[in-house]
Amino acid sequence: GVNPDLASERQTASFSVGRLTTLLDGGAERTRLRRAVVEAIERDPVFSRENEYFQSQNERYEAAVRKAIHLQKKMREMGWTEDGPEFTYICRALSGDVAFLLHRVFIRSISVLGSDKQVAKWIPLATEYQLIGSYAQTELGHGTYLQGLETTAVFDTTTQEFILNTPKISAMKWWPGDMGRSATHTVVFAQLYVRGKCYGVHPFIVQIRSLQDHSLCPGITAGDIGPKMNFEHVDNGYLMLQNVRIPRENMLNKFCEVQPDGTYIRRGSQKINYFTMTTVRVSLISDEVILPLMKACTIAIRYSVVRRQSKLNPGEEEAKILDYQTQQEKLLPPLAAAYAFHFINNYLHKLFDRGYKEIQGRKFDSLPELHAFSSGFKAMVSQHCIAGVEICLRACGGHGYSLLSGLPSLYTKIFASCIYEGENTILLLQTARFLIKCFTAASAGRPIPPSVTYLAAVKPRKCPAKEKLDFLSPDVYTEAYQHTAIRLLSSTAAKLQDLIQSGVEKHEAWNQCTVQLVQAAKAHCHYITVKNFVETVEKLENEAGIQKIMKHLCDLFALHGIFSNAGVFLHDGYISGAQMDMVTASYLDLLGVIRKDAVPLVDAFDFTDKSLNSALGNFDGHVYQRLYEWAQKSPTNKQMSPAYVRYLQPLLHNKLSKL
Amino acid sequence: GVNPDLASERQTASFSVGRLTTLLDGGAERTRLRRAVVEAIERDPVFSRENEYFQSQNERYEAAVRKAIHLQKKMREMGWTEDGPEFTYICRALSGDVAFLLHRVFIRSISVLGSDKQVAKWIPLATEYQLIGSYAQTELGHGTYLQGLETTAVFDTTTQEFILNTPKISAMKWWPGDMGRSATHTVVFAQLYVRGKCYGVHPFIVQIRSLQDHSLCPGITAGDIGPKMNFEHVDNGYLMLQNVRIPRENMLNKFCEVQPDGTYIRRGSQKINYFTMTTVRVSLISDEVILPLMKACTIAIRYSVVRRQSKLNPGEEEAKILDYQTQQEKLLPPLAAAYAFHFINNYLHKLFDRGYKEIQGRKFDSLPELHAFSSGFKAMVSQHCIAGVEICLRACGGHGYSLLSGLPSLYTKIFASCIYEGENTILLLQTARFLIKCFTAASAGRPIPPSVTYLAAVKPRKCPAKEKLDFLSPDVYTEAYQHTAIRLLSSTAAKLQDLIQSGVEKHEAWNQCTVQLVQAAKAHCHYITVKNFVETVEKLENEAGIQKIMKHLCDLFALHGIFSNAGVFLHDGYISGAQMDMVTASYLDLLGVIRKDAVPLVDAFDFTDKSLNSALGNFDGHVYQRLYEWAQKSPTNKQMSPAYVRYLQPLLHNKLSKL
Repeated sequence: GVNPDLASERQTASFSVGRLTTLLDGGAERTRLRRAVVEAIERDPVFSRENEYFQSQNERYEAAVRKAIHLQKKMREMGWTEDGPEFTYICRALSGDVAFLLHRVFIRSISVLGSDKQVAKWIPLATEYQLIGSYAQTELGHGTYLQGLETTAVFDTTTQEFILNTPKISAMKWWPGDMGRSATHTVVFAQLYVRGKCYGVHPFIVQIRSLQDHSLCPGITAGDIGPKMNFEHVDNGYLMLQNVRIPRENMLNKFCEVQPDGTYIRRGSQKINYFTMTTVRVSLISDEVILPLMKACTIAIRYSVVRRQSKLNPGEEEAKILDYQTQQEKLLPPLAAAYAFHFINNYLHKLFDRGYKEIQGRKFDSLPELHAFSSGFKAMVSQHCIAGVEICLRACGGHGYSLLSGLPSLYTKIFASCIYEGENTILLLQTARFLIKCFTAASAGRPIPPSVTYLAAVKPRKCPAKEKLDFLSPDVYTEAYQHTAIRLLSSTAAKLQDLIQSGVEKHEAWNQCTVQLVQAAKAHCHYITVKNFVETVEKLENEAGIQKIMKHLCDLFALHGIFSNAGVFLHDGYISGAQMDMVTASYLDLLGVIRKDAVPLVDAFDFTDKSLNSALGNFDGHVYQRLYEWAQKSPTNKQMSPAYVRYLQPLLHNKLSKL
Repeated sequence: GVNPDLASERQTASFSVGRLTTLLDGGAERTRLRRAVVEAIERDPVFSRENEYFQSQNERYEAAVRKAIHLQKKMREMGWTEDGPEFTYICRALSGDVAFLLHRVFIRSISVLGSDKQVAKWIPLATEYQLIGSYAQTELGHGTYLQGLETTAVFDTTTQEFILNTPKISAMKWWPGDMGRSATHTVVFAQLYVRGKCYGVHPFIVQIRSLQDHSLCPGITAGDIGPKMNFEHVDNGYLMLQNVRIPRENMLNKFCEVQPDGTYIRRGSQKINYFTMTTVRVSLISDEVILPLMKACTIAIRYSVVRRQSKLNPGEEEAKILDYQTQQEKLLPPLAAAYAFHFINNYLHKLFDRGYKEIQGRKFDSLPELHAFSSGFKAMVSQHCIAGVEICLRACGGHGYSLLSGLPSLYTKIFASCIYEGENTILLLQTARFLIKCFTAASAGRPIPPSVTYLAAVKPRKCPAKEKLDFLSPDVYTEAYQHTAIRLLSSTAAKLQDLIQSGVEKHEAWNQCTVQLVQAAKAHCHYITVKNFVETVEKLENEAGIQKIMKHLCDLFALHGIFSNAGVFLHDGYISGAQMDMVTASYLDLLGVIRKDAVPLVDAFDFTDKSLNSALGNFDGHVYQRLYEWAQKSPTNKQMSPAYVRYLQPLLHNKLSKL
C-alpha cells in the first residue's frame, strides 16, 4: 500500500493527472508508446540500474557496454529504429546509462562531413559494429576555441598520406567519450598542413586500435582520463599521435579536399554543419537537463510530504515539511521552472523544425537566430536546472546527501551539461552578440528577426499594477520582463558605444561589458520563457482544470523571477518598492495555493520507480523502509572489513606497539 | 621549474606574500609551527592521499582507520597533544580524512554529561582505545527536532536496568559516524520512560559490538548506510535496538538521574551543554567551510593564469582566461569572501572565548547572542562557501569536473556542512527569532546585546554617494548594509505583527513570514561580516602594502554583495538606480585591480601541493603534464577491461548472435 501521508495528497488533486501527462507527452498515443517502451526496457534485467550506486568506475563501464550491445539486440527484436518515434523513449528509459553514444556522433559526423564515397565505405561498417567510433575534438589545452587546436596533419605527397602528430602535451586529445577503452576508430580534428601552409582545422578518420586484438596501433598512445563527478560509465579518453600515417582518403572531404598533387580545394557551404551543432545543443536540453530537474522535483516533493519534522502548532503532530513556507519556497519554484522549460523546449523544437526545412531549401537566413537561441537557452535552462536540482537535494537534508536518494547522481550529471557542448558563459556571450547586432539594426530602422522585434518596441515607463492581484495578470509581468530585457540590453549597448567612442579598442570594450552582456542575454531568454509559458496556458482553454493550475505555475515562475532578481526590475523605477511588496505577497500566496497540488503535479511527469532509482522518491512513499533495504545491499556491509583484523583488533586488544 | 605563465604573476605582487601569510596565521611563530606540523604529516607515507580519487568506499574507510591509528603513534612520537597548539594544524594537514572523529564526540559527551564516576570509568577506556565510541542521536525519521526522537529507554526497577528499543523503522539510528563498522560503544539518545511516564530525551552508553571478536551484541542490528556524495572514509551507520538491557549506571547522569526506586531527579544547569553545541558549530566553520573555499580559490585562480583560450585581441596569442572580465567576476568575489570569512571567523572565536570565560563564572547572559551568532554565521558562511566552490569548479570547465582537479571532493565535502550541525534554513530562523526579540526589545526601549544595538539606531534616509569613487568609502557601504538589515527586519516584524493582530495564530503567522525572516537573518550576518572586514583593514595601518590590497578585497566583498542583491538596496530608494550604476562601475573596476594580485593572494593561503591534492592547482602550474600523469594511474587503465573479451571482441568479430 501507499504511505497514507502520500496517498492523501493524491486525493485532493484539482485536475486530472492522467490528462496532464497526456498533454506533456503530446497526445494519448505518445503516452501509450512511451509507457510501452519504458516497460519493455525496465522488464529486461540486463538494463537494471539496481546496483548502480554501489559500482566502481570499471563496473559502470562494463555494464554500459553490456547494455549498449544488448540494446542492439533488443531494438531488432522490438522493431525499434534509431529514427523511429520510440528512440527518444529508449533514451529516457536508459537514463543515458549506456555506452557508444560517441559512436553515434562518429556516424553522424561522417554522414555530414564525408563524401558519398566515404559514407558508402564507413557508415555500413559503423552501423554493423565492425568498428567502434569516437569523436576526438577537444584537447587537454583547448576546448571551446576550435581554431586553437594544436594536433597537426601534414600531407606527404610522396606517399599520398597524412602524418598526424601531437606536437606537445597540451595538444593531446582529452575527454572524447568511448575513446579511453572501447573505440577502434575516431574522427580526429587537426590543423591541416600542405607544403608548409596551414589550412586550418579539418576532420580525419584514424584507426587507433587493432580490430583483431584491440591493441593500440603503432604511434598511438591512448587510455582513460580517470574518475569524474559522474559519467563513470563512459570511458572518456586521451589520445596522443606520433607520426601516425593515414591514407589521403581518410580526410572527410565533402566540403574540402587535398588532391594528390597537394592542391587544396574548398567546395560547397559549411553552414549546414554549423546547424548540426546547433541541433545537438537543442536536443540535449530535454533529455539531459529538463528530465533530471523533473526527477529531482518528484523525489524531493514526494519525500517532503512523507517527512515530518517539528510542530507547526503546539499540540499537533509533527508537520509535513512541505507545509513549511521555507520548504515550499525551495521546491515549488523549481517545479514551476520544470514546466516552463518543458514548454520552451517544445517551442525550440518547433523553431528548429521550421529552420531545418528552410535550410533544406537552401535558405540560411534564420541560422544566426537559431544559433543565438540554442546557445542562450542551453545556458539559461541548464543554469536554472542545476540550481533547482541542488535545491531539491539540500531540501532533503541528510538523506538527500546519500547516493541512494538518487539526487546526487542527477546533480552531478546535470552539472556536466553546464560545461559541455559550449560552456554557459561563452554561449550567453554569443547570444548577447546576436542581440547587440539586432538592437543596433533596430535602432537604425533595419529589419530584425521576429523573436527580437520587441527590442524595437516603445514601452510604457512604469508598471501599472495597483494591488497585489494585478501581478497575477500575465500582461503585467510579461511587460515587466520585456521592459527589463530591453533596458539591460540598451544600457549595455550604450556603455559599449561610449567606451569605443572614448578610444578604447573594440575588443577591450567588449571585454569590459561582458558581465553585463551575460546579464542581458539571460534576461532575454527569461522573458521569452515567461512569454511562451503565458501563451501555452492561453491555449489550454479546453482543459479548464489543467489551465487553472498551469496558470498558477506560470504566475509562480514569473513572480519568482521578479522576486529573486528584484534589482533589475527596481533599477529604473519600472517597478516601485511598494509594487515589489505586492509581487512578494502574491508570490508567497501562490506557494500555499500550488502546495496543495504539488504531488499530483510531479505524478504527472509519470516517472517509474525504476527510472527515478531513488529510495526517497518511490510512488508508494515508503522511504525509510527502502533506505534501510538498499543500505543493507551496500558492499560496505558485505563482510567484516579487513580493517578489523588489520587495525581495529590489534588496537582494541592493546597490541598497538606491534603496528 | 614553474610554468612561466604562473611565475610571471608572482613577480608583480603589490605586497609581501610571506607577511600576509603570517598575518593570516596570527604571527610568525604560528606559521612556523603550522609548517612544521604539516611537513611532519605529509612526509609520512601512511598519511598519503595520493590514490584517494581512485579508491572505493571500502578502501577509503580502511585508509582512514589506518591513518587514525597511526596518528596516535605519531602524536606520541612528536609530543603533540589534543589540547596543544598543534592540533588544529594536524586537522588541516589531514584534510579531515581520518577515522574516529565521532570517538572524540563520544569522549566529549561523556566528559560534559557524565558524572565524576562515569568520567572516571569511561574516559580512560576511550582515551586508550580499549573501546571505540560513537554518538547516536539522529534517527531515520528525525534530525533537527530532538524532541521527536522515537528510540525508547524504559527503566526496569526489578533488574535496575534500562531496556532500549527501536519501536519502529523511523526510530532507527541513522548517520552516526564511526558506527557502521568500527564502534564498540555508542551514546544513544532515547526517550526515558519510568513507570509509564516519559521524561524526554536522555543519553545512554550502550555497547553494540563485542570487544573480543567485534560481533554484534544481542539485540543489536547495525551496519553501514552505504554510499554518499563524500565522506566515503567515514562509516556512517545505522543501529536498531531490540530489548537491549544496560545497567542503571549507563545513563549519563550529571544533570539528571533515575534512582534505584525509579525516582527521577534533575539537577544543576544544562546551559553549559547548550554552549558546547554552539562551540562545535563555530569550530567547524574554519576547518570544514572556509579552508575548502580557500583551496578551491587557489586551484581555480592558478589554473586560470595557465589556461589560455581564445584571443582578446586579434593578432595576439590566446589570452589567459583570468584576463576575461567574466572569469574575474566568477573567481575574485569568492576570493574576497574567503578573506572576509577568515576575519569574521577570528571575530567569532574571540566572542566565544569571552563567552566561555563568562560562563565559567556562571554568567549565562551572553548565551542567546552566542547561539544566534553561531547559527547564523554557520549558515551564512557555509552558504557562501558552497556557492564559491561551485563557481570555482565550473570556472575550470571540463578539467574541473575531473576528480583529479580536487574541486569535486572539496565541493561535495562542503556540501555536507550546509546540512549537518543544523540545517541552514532552520539555523537562520533561529537567528531571526533572536533578532526579532531584540528588535521588539529595542523598540520598547529595553536593553539589547551590543552586537545588535544598531537595530535601535536612527538612520539617514538616503545613501549620500555622488560618484562611483564614493562607493569605495567603507562608511558609505557599511551604512547601506546596516540600513538594509534594519529595513528587512523591521518590515518583517511589522508583517508578523499585522498578521497576529488580524487574528492569525502566532505559529501560523511566524510560518507565513519565514521566507522573509531568513532574508533578514542573512542580511544581519552579511552586515556584521562587512563591518568586521572594514575594522580589520583599519587595524592594518602598520602594513601599508597589505592594508591596501585588503582594502580592495573588502571593497570588492561589499560591492559584490550590493551588486548581486541589488533589490534589497534599491527597494526603498536608499540606493537609487543611478547610484547602483556607480556601484556596478566601481565593482567592475575593482576586478581589474585585484586581478593583478590574484595569484599572490592565493599563494598567501600557503597550501602545500599535497594538501591541495589537485592536478590543476600545484604551485608549479604544470597542469597538463600532471593531469596526464595522474590519469595514467587510474584503475581504469590498469589492464585490459574484461568488457573487451566479454562484449567488445564478440561484437567486433561479428559473433553477436552468440551473446
